[in-house]
Amino acid sequence: MVVHTDYLFFNTKKRQEFVRITDEIASIVKTSGVKEGMVLVSAMHITSGVFVNDWEEGLIEDFQVWLEKLAPSGLDYQHHQTGEDNADAHLKRTIMGHQVMLPITDRTLDLGPWEQVFYAEFVGRRKKRAIDKVVGL
Amino acid sequence: MVVHTDYLFFNTKKRQEFVRITDEIASIVKTSGVKEGMVLVSAMHITSGVFVNDWEEGLIEDFQVWLEKLAPSGLDYQHHQTGEDNADAHLKRTIMGHQVMLPITDRTLDLGPWEQVFYAEFVGRRKKRAIDKVVGL
Amino acid sequence: MVVHTDYLFFNTKKRQEFVRITDEIASIVKTSGVKEGMVLVSAMHITSGVFVNDWEEGLIEDFQVWLEKLAPSGLDYQHHQTGEDNADAHLKRTIMGHQVMLPITDRTLDLGPWEQVFYAEFVGRRKKRAIDKVVGL
Repeated sequence: MVVHTDYLFFNTKKRQEFVRITDEIASIVKTSGVKEGMVLVSAMHITSGVFVNDWEEGLIEDFQVWLEKLAPSGLDYQHHQTGEDNADAHLKRTIMGHQVMLPITDRTLDLGPWEQVFYAEFVGRRKKRAIDKVVGL
Repeated sequence: MVVHTDYLFFNTKKRQEFVRITDEIASIVKTSGVKEGMVLVSAMHITSGVFVNDWEEGLIEDFQVWLEKLAPSGLDYQHHQTGEDNADAHLKRTIMGHQVMLPITDRTLDLGPWEQVFYAEFVGRRKKRAIDKVVGL
Repeated sequence: MVVHTDYLFFNTKKRQEFVRITDEIASIVKTSGVKEGMVLVSAMHITSGVFVNDWEEGLIEDFQVWLEKLAPSGLDYQHHQTGEDNADAHLKRTIMGHQVMLPITDRTLDLGPWEQVFYAEFVGRRKKRAIDKVVGL
């Protein structure tokens, strides 16, 4: 059994931004040498997430509008009494999910034709990271 | 360590449909020979999901109504400028989740008494699949 | 490869309550002896969840208010024709997620500085449990 660990770092220009990371994860899987197994990709911050969906700019815009509707910024959240202003980011990342597990078959990410992996930032413009943990044979 | 891979195929009659797959996954686990470990069950399409919840027809209807409320079809989504009409399916599957990891203890899915696994289709009437990746001893 | 299984039990005083379980999981990881790997933490009931977010009382209150808005209790759900009154709990746990996978590096949960793990109860005042499945080297 092989266990291989790596980290991806992010520092987005915008407060809210989705970053495609499929190729970076595929590269980590290759480095791990794992032929059959899976890789956990998990945001290490509580105002960002990791999800699998379509790589289409219109849909990415739809996600942003939708998340703002379901979990609006600027409300009078209890969390803001601590001096924070990002309660909505905690809620938004909850809807998107904060981690995924990707299957590895024959040294390759075993994804469907349209599956792409994204890091979802909701409070950017600072250094953040996601862990990649590969397990397998 | 054992890693065993299989795929489940779907072609639902309705556009939106929840299909119970607990028994199919249990069967794949048996075939794998894994005694202790876990199995990843993950939709390979971005308009379908996999989730664990109750096997009760009324609740399944409640889920459908609720998802339509949170992520309505028929809105003027940006994604539809590509010719697609299924942006809501991408959002709905995000709420339900696109994958689960099920524990295996003593060669059996170690689920609570009411836990059932479902494949959630939001753009059906075509061939789709989910991957099953069993890891363990 | 090591696979180690344990269970956490809950019996909350309130119907709806979030219980921090980071330390309990860290303890199970230590007992497992796993140096490098991951641990699955998964609710075994369909009206509770497991999630990672901030340990801040104001935000926890925000989550409760938000969930009640997205998935209200007291509506005329189909599920209630079975005699149940908890359809909203099934929906709320779906938003929060019912399981997480936590990375283990150097015998320790490899979490970001603010990541805390919670068991989310939506129909409490009865005995419930979550499974912990550690895999690794």
